[in-house]
Amino acid sequence: MNQEKEKDLMRWDMDTYEAIATEVLEAIPFEYPGSDTEVAYVYPEFTSVCPWTGLPDFGELTISYIPREKLVELKSLKYYLNSFRNVGILQEHVVSRVKEDLVQLLNPVSLTVKADFRPRGGIGTQVQADFRS
Amino acid sequence: MNQEKEKDLMRWDMDTYEAIATEVLEAIPFEYPGSDTEVAYVYPEFTSVCPWTGLPDFGELTISYIPREKLVELKSLKYYLNSFRNVGILQEHVVSRVKEDLVQLLNPVSLTVKADFRPRGGIGTQVQADFRS
Amino acid sequence: MNQEKEKDLMRWDMDTYEAIATEVLEAIPFEYPGSDTEVAYVYPEFTSVCPWTGLPDFGELTISYIPREKLVELKSLKYYLNSFRNVGILQEHVVSRVKEDLVQLLNPVSLTVKADFRPRGGIGTQVQADFRS
Amino acid sequence: MNQEKEKDLMRWDMDTYEAIATEVLEAIPFEYPGSDTEVAYVYPEFTSVCPWTGLPDFGELTISYIPREKLVELKSLKYYLNSFRNVGILQEHVVSRVKEDLVQLLNPVSLTVKADFRPRGGIGTQVQADFRS
Amino acid sequence: MNQEKEKDLMRWDMDTYEAIATEVLEAIPFEYPGSDTEVAYVYPEFTSVCPWTGLPDFGELTISYIPREKLVELKSLKYYLNSFRNVGILQEHVVSRVKEDLVQLLNPVSLTVKADFRPRGGIGTQVQADFRS
Amino acid sequence: MNQEKEKDLMRWDMDTYEAIATEVLEAIPFEYPGSDTEVAYVYPEFTSVCPWTGLPDFGELTISYIPREKLVELKSLKYYLNSFRNVGILQEHVVSRVKEDLVQLLNPVSLTVKADFRPRGGIGTQVQADFRS
Amino acid sequence: MNQEKEKDLMRWDMDTYEAIATEVLEAIPFEYPGSDTEVAYVYPEFTSVCPWTGLPDFGELTISYIPREKLVELKSLKYYLNSFRNVGILQEHVVSRVKEDLVQLLNPVSLTVKADFRPRGGIGTQVQADFRS
Amino acid sequence: MNQEKEKDLMRWDMDTYEAIATEVLEAIPFEYPGSDTEVAYVYPEFTSVCPWTGLPDFGELTISYIPREKLVELKSLKYYLNSFRNVGILQEHVVSRVKEDLVQLLNPVSLTVKADFRPRGGIGTQVQADFRS
Amino acid sequence: MNQEKEKDLMRWDMDTYEAIATEVLEAIPFEYPGSDTEVAYVYPEFTSVCPWTGLPDFGELTISYIPREKLVELKSLKYYLNSFRNVGILQEHVVSRVKEDLVQLLNPVSLTVKADFRPRGGIGTQVQADFRS
Amino acid sequence: MNQEKEKDLMRWDMDTYEAIATEVLEAIPFEYPGSDTEVAYVYPEFTSVCPWTGLPDFGELTISYIPREKLVELKSLKYYLNSFRNVGILQEHVVSRVKEDLVQLLNPVSLTVKADFRPRGGIGTQVQADFRS
Ligand SMILES: [Ca+2]
Ligand SMILES: [Ca+2]
Ligand SMILES: [Ca+2]
Ligand SMILES: [Ca+2]
Ligand SMILES: [Ca+2]
Ligand SMILES: [Ca+2]
Ligand SMILES: [Ca+2]
Ligand SMILES: [Ca+2]
Ligand SMILES: [Ca+2]
Ligand SMILES: [Ca+2]
Ligand SMILES: [Ca+2]
Ligand SMILES: [Ca+2]
Ligand SMILES: [Ca+2]
Ligand SMILES: [Ca+2]
Ligand SMILES: [Ca+2]
Ligand SMILES: [Ca+2]
Repeated sequence: MNQEKEKDLMRWDMDTYEAIATEVLEAIPFEYPGSDTEVAYVYPEFTSVCPWTGLPDFGELTISYIPREKLVELKSLKYYLNSFRNVGILQEHVVSRVKEDLVQLLNPVSLTVKADFRPRGGIGTQVQADFRS
Repeated sequence: MNQEKEKDLMRWDMDTYEAIATEVLEAIPFEYPGSDTEVAYVYPEFTSVCPWTGLPDFGELTISYIPREKLVELKSLKYYLNSFRNVGILQEHVVSRVKEDLVQLLNPVSLTVKADFRPRGGIGTQVQADFRS
Repeated sequence: MNQEKEKDLMRWDMDTYEAIATEVLEAIPFEYPGSDTEVAYVYPEFTSVCPWTGLPDFGELTISYIPREKLVELKSLKYYLNSFRNVGILQEHVVSRVKEDLVQLLNPVSLTVKADFRPRGGIGTQVQADFRS
Repeated sequence: MNQEKEKDLMRWDMDTYEAIATEVLEAIPFEYPGSDTEVAYVYPEFTSVCPWTGLPDFGELTISYIPREKLVELKSLKYYLNSFRNVGILQEHVVSRVKEDLVQLLNPVSLTVKADFRPRGGIGTQVQADFRS
Repeated sequence: MNQEKEKDLMRWDMDTYEAIATEVLEAIPFEYPGSDTEVAYVYPEFTSVCPWTGLPDFGELTISYIPREKLVELKSLKYYLNSFRNVGILQEHVVSRVKEDLVQLLNPVSLTVKADFRPRGGIGTQVQADFRS
Repeated sequence: MNQEKEKDLMRWDMDTYEAIATEVLEAIPFEYPGSDTEVAYVYPEFTSVCPWTGLPDFGELTISYIPREKLVELKSLKYYLNSFRNVGILQEHVVSRVKEDLVQLLNPVSLTVKADFRPRGGIGTQVQADFRS
Repeated sequence: MNQEKEKDLMRWDMDTYEAIATEVLEAIPFEYPGSDTEVAYVYPEFTSVCPWTGLPDFGELTISYIPREKLVELKSLKYYLNSFRNVGILQEHVVSRVKEDLVQLLNPVSLTVKADFRPRGGIGTQVQADFRS
Repeated sequence: MNQEKEKDLMRWDMDTYEAIATEVLEAIPFEYPGSDTEVAYVYPEFTSVCPWTGLPDFGELTISYIPREKLVELKSLKYYLNSFRNVGILQEHVVSRVKEDLVQLLNPVSLTVKADFRPRGGIGTQVQADFRS
Repeated sequence: MNQEKEKDLMRWDMDTYEAIATEVLEAIPFEYPGSDTEVAYVYPEFTSVCPWTGLPDFGELTISYIPREKLVELKSLKYYLNSFRNVGILQEHVVSRVKEDLVQLLNPVSLTVKADFRPRGGIGTQVQADFRS
Repeated sequence: MNQEKEKDLMRWDMDTYEAIATEVLEAIPFEYPGSDTEVAYVYPEFTSVCPWTGLPDFGELTISYIPREKLVELKSLKYYLNSFRNVGILQEHVVSRVKEDLVQLLNPVSLTVKADFRPRGGIGTQVQADFRS
């Protein structure tokens, strides 16, 4: 495949950060506030787009937190994570963005977002962002 | 399958928290009180019902504790855990309920209940509740 | 736990075969009839009830078939399999019942239903029923 | 999350079969025609969209064939498979479409396309389509 | 440990073949006689005694068969297999004995008994006996 | 199998704690006393009997310790552990008994006995007892 | 990284097929000619270079054969396989070249060369070439 | 390490084929002659010496056979296999030698010896020799 | 293979440390400086050459760090790591060299380089070098 | 096999501690003295002889250390470890002997030797010896 043709293929319509559906996130009350509880969600189907090559990235996202008074509603979390599908965003920045959106929503005691991306150029990337209140 | 039909199917008779058979739990004496001992039970067959969708949830429950003077009788634990089968209860709340019922029964030095639920909407959920006396 | 008490616990309301929701199954057209195609569905969350002990059984069901002109609609299959939840039925008979209901629905070239049940009394049970037209 | 809101979220712009980039596929000469050789490509990052729910599907695609005089060029295969990303297509139909496009391109002795899709509603789906010349 | 002492330890009361509880086995009717069905039981907790050293053997027993009109009742199978616990019997002979007892009980189309014994003297032993009617 | 018959089967001759062969244990000198050394023995073939049901239990025992001046002789340890074979003893108590017998024999700096028992009623049990001098 | 720079980096000195050290291969006599014997060598450290991108490929090579009167000497095989290190050769062609060189050397009854290459662009490639005399 | 020194180290006293203790092998009667039975022994602790480098080889040996009237006595098999410990013998020849000794001893219906040797120079070797009467 | 011949084969053109392409490394800005973030890259395709034997080494390299204001650009990292391909360098020194080059580039809070090399002479080597600012 | 015969077989020529080739060990300079570096060697092919039974022991040895100014030369380490092959030495003592020889050679900051021996009499043994300067 010649490089001219390849460059054409790469020019698909990548979404900007605006497409991230932060507004779809919903919180629900946690029935045991003040208890010593930890919650984790594992999402092996995360995908976004590399802003430089236009090629898709795939990874497993793990969100874990100690709730204060709110839990994230699971279906809203799914739609939120799906909204990254066509967004151009670096692997190293995905976890920080998700962390900030969820901390804003939940006001948790602490929260961690980890991502384990499949290899690109033979190199797998793992990123973790932590919030401690 | 149209949404009308789907809604009909969801309307099965979900049990309330009343159906949780706390009263079936039995304790037996621990022959080595004061010794440095830890006990854990792993139950990969836990199931309850999502209170919003009416669909079943499945998970592996792990209960670990440092006994003071009592152990939980294994068969009574099984009947207790089975009693969640048709109860509508959020995954995030199951572990706290089990924790409270067993702390009440056993008066342990410490006790942890962990649950690892199978994916819903592609997202797996893990929850852990801790008691320290 | 004494045997009197255990017997009481076993007496929960088990459903009869009538509760199996065969009528919820829906077929959809297969776009490539006559092609050499095989389809398999793996369902690790199957559960029914032992008709003798009243205790739940858990297993992984695998349905594989060569379609003629119809596919089973996935959501309808899920509601159908969920309808076994409180039915008293022997592990050895589950696969034959599912086989018959799906053969009736799909008129497939061939169809196999396998089940791998978790251990009872330390013994795991695997059953397979085959249909060849 | 109420159903009204959920329906809105589902309405993203799903592509039709037209978006499948069959034309990007390129063949290269096989240096050992007539030899007894088998080739397989394993692609764990396949994704398309469910035409009914608008939600993404994820699966591992395996393409295996006995070449006659042509091999598929690897980078062109990748762009071709990536072009399914926003296409609404049933899991059971993906393998047949890929099979037909590659048989057209390569005129192979035989070719098989398998897909192993991640669970939806707790049910994993595996599909296989075979071509024998 | 000197050999005198070791010899004393070995002299525990090993049971003869008489202790094998063939009479406890029970059959139940198979509801789908004539159908194409296979059943397998996997028992990872089999133990007997080496007739020469008096030391226990441990293995996983797998019994698979195509039923004609009878199934073996699961709890009776368990008590039957447990009855080998203190019987002195060679690993190579266990599978043939179990095969003969079950063929007698069930009159199956075919039946296979496999055993995978844990290493003795660093050597693991696997034995399989087949019955074809 | 009716309950009358089942009760009869359960009445086999269970041994009491008297059958535990503590006296067979032998110690041998540790050639590197005072060095920073840890030793662990893993025994996947432990079996005893449930004192309530008369049914066998199976588990993996792990004994780890920091020796002072003595090691346990391996063959004597094996005969000791084998002597639990027909003893009626609760899973939660096995580890404490083994711990006490070995501490008495070895006078170690520290010693831990862990057991991981196979599921009963679908529930696996893990127990750990620690000694610190 | 801009494309100008990337192109420069790719221009390393790739070897041609001439560098493949077929002449280093040595055969040794097989002591059991005519016996029913199969031999396989598994080499997880195979590497060559993609002739188009100049980037290295990595794969596991498996060579299996039924010898007639000769075996390949293991150290010579290693030096032979190492000689592909900087050779530009397509993954699909490696197995055929190795097959031809070894058939020439050994005159075997049959011989198969398989390669399982690590993913490039997310796609893993497996190739197999067979010789039957 | 200089080559002079290395050569000195290699000169340990390698045994010849004479040290293989064929005479230690013992057969015992098979109680179910004529039955359809298969037996396999798996020995992960096989070791011999490379006749060219003087360095040890390690592998897992699997011996499987259909007995006619004799079984090999397990302890004698172990001493026989241990006798290869310091024998200089090529990996490709070990399986044929073991095959011949056991066929001579047992007169089986069929017998297979497989060996899976750990890597030398990064290359793992698997060899299999079959006897069919 | 005689030693004369082997020595000849070993004399390929090994590169010196000069060939390590430190200059190809590029940094990009980290969008979330000051946040609590960790990044790791896993590269299972690292290869270099043993300076004494001239034979290739293979290993998995893991680079993890807490970024201050810069991230390493992934494609430049790949070309950098590939540049070790024909360099003669001891396994124990690879990690320190990579550590120093990346600390120079990134000025990170901390950085660790681990390598897990495949066995040579049956011995696998793992090396780890840490930088803490 | 009768005990007389077995005793004869056991009487092979076991080496004493004198055969341990401590003198073959060689050190090489560490190029990064003072850096924060850890090195580990994993050797899955360790074998010695039980001094009481004359039977071989097999285990995986792991040597890890923080070097000061010296590394152990890998080939010399291999010949050193191979020299235990016919030495009669208890499993619990192997790790201490290796630890002392390497501390003497390397003067490291710290060093640990672990061994994981294959089961004897069904019991696996793990031993670890630590040196801290
Ligand atoms: Ca937005
Ligand atoms: Ca906690
Ligand atoms: Ca403790
Ligand atoms: Ca019905
Ligand atoms: Ca087919
Ligand atoms: Ca198109
Ligand atoms: Ca009897
Ligand atoms: Ca069949
Ligand atoms: Ca220590
Ligand atoms: Ca050449
Ligand atoms: Ca053969
Ligand atoms: Ca001999
Ligand atoms: Ca057979
Ligand atoms: Ca952190
Ligand atoms: Ca010496
Ligand atoms: Ca460190």
